[in-house]
Amino acid sequence: MNAITDYPIHELMTKRWSPYCFDERPVNDEDLRSLFEAARWAPSSYNEQPWSYVVAKKENPDEFKRVLSCLVEANQVWAKEAPVLALCITSLKFARNDKPNRAAVHDLGLANSNLVLEAAALGLVAHQMIGILPDKAREIYQVPEGHDPMTAIAIGYAGYGGNLPPEIRERDAARRPRKALKEFVFSGKWGTTSGLVS
Amino acid sequence: MNAITDYPIHELMTKRWSPYCFDERPVNDEDLRSLFEAARWAPSSYNEQPWSYVVAKKENPDEFKRVLSCLVEANQVWAKEAPVLALCITSLKFARNDKPNRAAVHDLGLANSNLVLEAAALGLVAHQMIGILPDKAREIYQVPEGHDPMTAIAIGYAGYGGNLPPEIRERDAARRPRKALKEFVFSGKWGTTSGLVS
Repeated sequence: MNAITDYPIHELMTKRWSPYCFDERPVNDEDLRSLFEAARWAPSSYNEQPWSYVVAKKENPDEFKRVLSCLVEANQVWAKEAPVLALCITSLKFARNDKPNRAAVHDLGLANSNLVLEAAALGLVAHQMIGILPDKAREIYQVPEGHDPMTAIAIGYAGYGGNLPPEIRERDAARRPRKALKEFVFSGKWGTTSGLVS
Repeated sequence: MNAITDYPIHELMTKRWSPYCFDERPVNDEDLRSLFEAARWAPSSYNEQPWSYVVAKKENPDEFKRVLSCLVEANQVWAKEAPVLALCITSLKFARNDKPNRAAVHDLGLANSNLVLEAAALGLVAHQMIGILPDKAREIYQVPEGHDPMTAIAIGYAGYGGNLPPEIRERDAARRPRKALKEFVFSGKWGTTSGLVS
């Protein structure tokens, strides 16, 4: 399950994983708060912190179904088994001067990364999805103009996916390959492998 | 220097910091490889891994100056003191079908986040910048169409900034404030604080 790396990295990042199979076990509020607290401490351009979240726990079935309905069908199939769902929204303009924030989407990634790594630290798993229905999310949650629903995250404990079709369950057994460092770490010219990794 | 959090989070994220003042001390290649290896293991939409990097060490002054020249002036002032600079590029289309990757910029954020957290794990610091000159970077490094230079990262050891103007040096003494969780963790409706954090 842990990443098999070519060079050593911190175990938080080797442990991080995006499974499709969740256990029924709920996530306690304390842990959830730590997840959003981690997102809170991400860096951002001009410290704008453009991210916001709409969160729903399965204990509140109506709330949960509403967030679930903002995912594309293919994600609903497995994400409905997770105990917690969150929509991830980013603000496209700087609050202080209404100018476009070129880093808005990138910085949502920084916050989401902290959130999923905190999940790994707590023995949880968090699976991010770009496959959402942004217009539907905007309508349901009255997301104002200038704030874009971008992604969603399913949060919980890794499980066996007993309720899932085998073809989805099998995905968790497959290793996710990675490009070699020499394919994306360059020097001098884009496409020329850096001496550092060759 | 460490973040003072309202709820506990993993120390890797409280230690992470984006200083303006770097020490002269170079970063060894082993550590740099671990930084890019960490980026490598970030999650991405369809496991596309859209990120790539152009890296330059100060030991190669010509290389270093070329990357430095791709930063906006205000960033060059302090980033020139860092021992390592990297440009961060993302691919806007899926390699397998040439379709637009809506997650391309977000997922660069995920990779960069891993990189800066690995830096924190190794006692290094990494300061990300959105203030780059993308067109210049594209020209100098012959970045192909469909790949966008987005950000840069200065990497090294935190220092005292003896060569920097006091108004820049002072930034490192200031605490970076954060929004409260209740300002960005919602339920039911965007803007309505979730019971989780109220």
